[in-house]
Amino acid sequence: MKSRAAVAFEPGQPLQIVEIDVAPPQPGEVLVRIIATGVCHTDAFTLSGEDPEGLFPVVLGHEGAGVVVEVGEGVTTLQPGDHVIPLYTAECGRCKFCTSGKTNLCQAVRATQGRGVMPDGTSRFSYNGQMLHHYMGTSTFSEYTVLPEISLAKINPEAPPEKVCLLGCGVTTGIGAVHNTAKVQRGDTVAVFGLGGIGLAVIQGAVQAGASRIIGVDINPGKFELAKSMGATDCTNPKDFDRPIQEVIVEMTDGGVDYSFECIGNVEVMRSALECCHKGWGESVIIGVAGAGQEIHTRPFQLVTGRVWRGSAFGGVKGRSQLPGMVEQAMRGEIDLDPYITHEMPLEQINEAFDLMHRGESIRTVIRY
Amino acid sequence: MKSRAAVAFEPGQPLQIVEIDVAPPQPGEVLVRIIATGVCHTDAFTLSGEDPEGLFPVVLGHEGAGVVVEVGEGVTTLQPGDHVIPLYTAECGRCKFCTSGKTNLCQAVRATQGRGVMPDGTSRFSYNGQMLHHYMGTSTFSEYTVLPEISLAKINPEAPPEKVCLLGCGVTTGIGAVHNTAKVQRGDTVAVFGLGGIGLAVIQGAVQAGASRIIGVDINPGKFELAKSMGATDCTNPKDFDRPIQEVIVEMTDGGVDYSFECIGNVEVMRSALECCHKGWGESVIIGVAGAGQEIHTRPFQLVTGRVWRGSAFGGVKGRSQLPGMVEQAMRGEIDLDPYITHEMPLEQINEAFDLMHRGESIRTVIRY
Repeated sequence: MKSRAAVAFEPGQPLQIVEIDVAPPQPGEVLVRIIATGVCHTDAFTLSGEDPEGLFPVVLGHEGAGVVVEVGEGVTTLQPGDHVIPLYTAECGRCKFCTSGKTNLCQAVRATQGRGVMPDGTSRFSYNGQMLHHYMGTSTFSEYTVLPEISLAKINPEAPPEKVCLLGCGVTTGIGAVHNTAKVQRGDTVAVFGLGGIGLAVIQGAVQAGASRIIGVDINPGKFELAKSMGATDCTNPKDFDRPIQEVIVEMTDGGVDYSFECIGNVEVMRSALECCHKGWGESVIIGVAGAGQEIHTRPFQLVTGRVWRGSAFGGVKGRSQLPGMVEQAMRGEIDLDPYITHEMPLEQINEAFDLMHRGESIRTVIRY
Repeated sequence: MKSRAAVAFEPGQPLQIVEIDVAPPQPGEVLVRIIATGVCHTDAFTLSGEDPEGLFPVVLGHEGAGVVVEVGEGVTTLQPGDHVIPLYTAECGRCKFCTSGKTNLCQAVRATQGRGVMPDGTSRFSYNGQMLHHYMGTSTFSEYTVLPEISLAKINPEAPPEKVCLLGCGVTTGIGAVHNTAKVQRGDTVAVFGLGGIGLAVIQGAVQAGASRIIGVDINPGKFELAKSMGATDCTNPKDFDRPIQEVIVEMTDGGVDYSFECIGNVEVMRSALECCHKGWGESVIIGVAGAGQEIHTRPFQLVTGRVWRGSAFGGVKGRSQLPGMVEQAMRGEIDLDPYITHEMPLEQINEAFDLMHRGESIRTVIRY
């Protein structure tokens, strides 16, 4: 079938809005019509060509919501008309990872997903006969996309797709990192580095957890107002100080914070985030994705004196099990998605969404098909 | 009073056995006669001059056992005749750290201890009128030494000092890191980097915890026999492979170990220890002390995909509360101290103990006064 799509033919070039061919779902696969999709920094990172695992040409997009159109042979848990959120972290329920009870990093389709193809090793996308790669197993920048059954969370059909699409990545990542990875408790102190969509979601999660103090950190003070409106108790700009921001935060908090979160992908900020944690027990969670080949570093003394360095992917959330509940939370207003959505536009203007993001003028732009 | 002591007058020089002057205990302090002391790599590290916090002249030694001789004003929990183990990590029971329930890193005497003096800012040691520094708050290389009351664990007087002195540092550090820091559970897999005293203690702790597999790693295969006799299920030499040892261990264990421990102080080994951990949940604990200015480094992806990087000091053990129980365990044979003690000698031969350690020929030499 034909589908409108924004295709990345080459790294560093704008997406092209074209009509691509989408092959029918194969066994275990599901054809989904995407209703709305967010545009995330990870899409931009891959599009830039900096992502060493980036493949071209490709249909990007990984933060969507849609409706099942057709299911392939053997699909039992979904049927046409079901509302779904695509998952770049699948949940097969059977692999060593899913059954460990310790991680959300299902590996069932990881290898083929990383190679930009479906589990059978082929693509469902083509343009003028040329194969196009899938992206993160989701490719939500095509109106019609094909995913493995295990990469779809079935959600309440009443949920507004143009909002809950954000639970497909950024908001879930930030809120989940607070609850599942850090396990912030009532009264804990928190520092959040980077006040984009993920950072704001961390703030929202920290408020839910009852954190006593939530310190937002960004070099763009234009982000402070929104951060404070969402629950940051303090906001601080590293450029206002002539000493490392971790020293400033350690002073502000009489020894450091209980938990910090890096929501940028900058390895030097990751160091600051670790070192602003309290000696003896502070834990830092890396959420941001760093550039190829970049490394975090610190003196081991930081860890020997009790700090813990962790990371989080998709907020530690198991998509099929847990995302439907988060959608319900959003519908009940316990997760507020409105503050993240600063812009909405049709697919045809998607390059503008990237421009807004690069200029730091948007939190999330939602594309509505 | 006069006391025999091995004094480090200058970095890089052998210790000199001399008779020093020891001033009486001040309020809150305790005079202890050391009966036995281990010689540890940390003493050698400071003696070498590599330790940026090293101060000279100094009375080294931190792994001892002895008897209380005299108590200063206000000391209520100890009296002459009590058997004690000196603690380089005090336990005041009152500071933010002690009351947090999250760490053993009491900070009550940390600042002055780091400056090589008693809490009142002065030293109790002198030689020919020249002030000698205290070391780690313990200075067990003097037959008579003075410590704060909060830096002494009162132990069963029946315990053999020439054995339980090892619980003052290495053995407690290794066993404690397994139980208190990593919290290894029955069936978990473990890798131990460095098969010296600490590494062997980690093995002993892992056996206690019921680990299903304990992989010892050392570039000196001469250490494998003892490691296996203590419970290592496999031993591997990184020099036998032309690829990184973390890859070898990941293959050996179908994805990596649940817990790894770095017991050397080498920042590149710390990286290997992290990266041999299982994706999704593996945790690496840094125990070794690295040289000045050295930094650990890895790709943040290692953490984002679920590995955790921690450190441990004194095995997370609260000395006054927990060490007496470990002494009882040693007396019941639940902790076996004999394998660590490869040499015993009088104070006069202490430089030989350092030589044996540098040549990798000893695990622990115990000095008996």
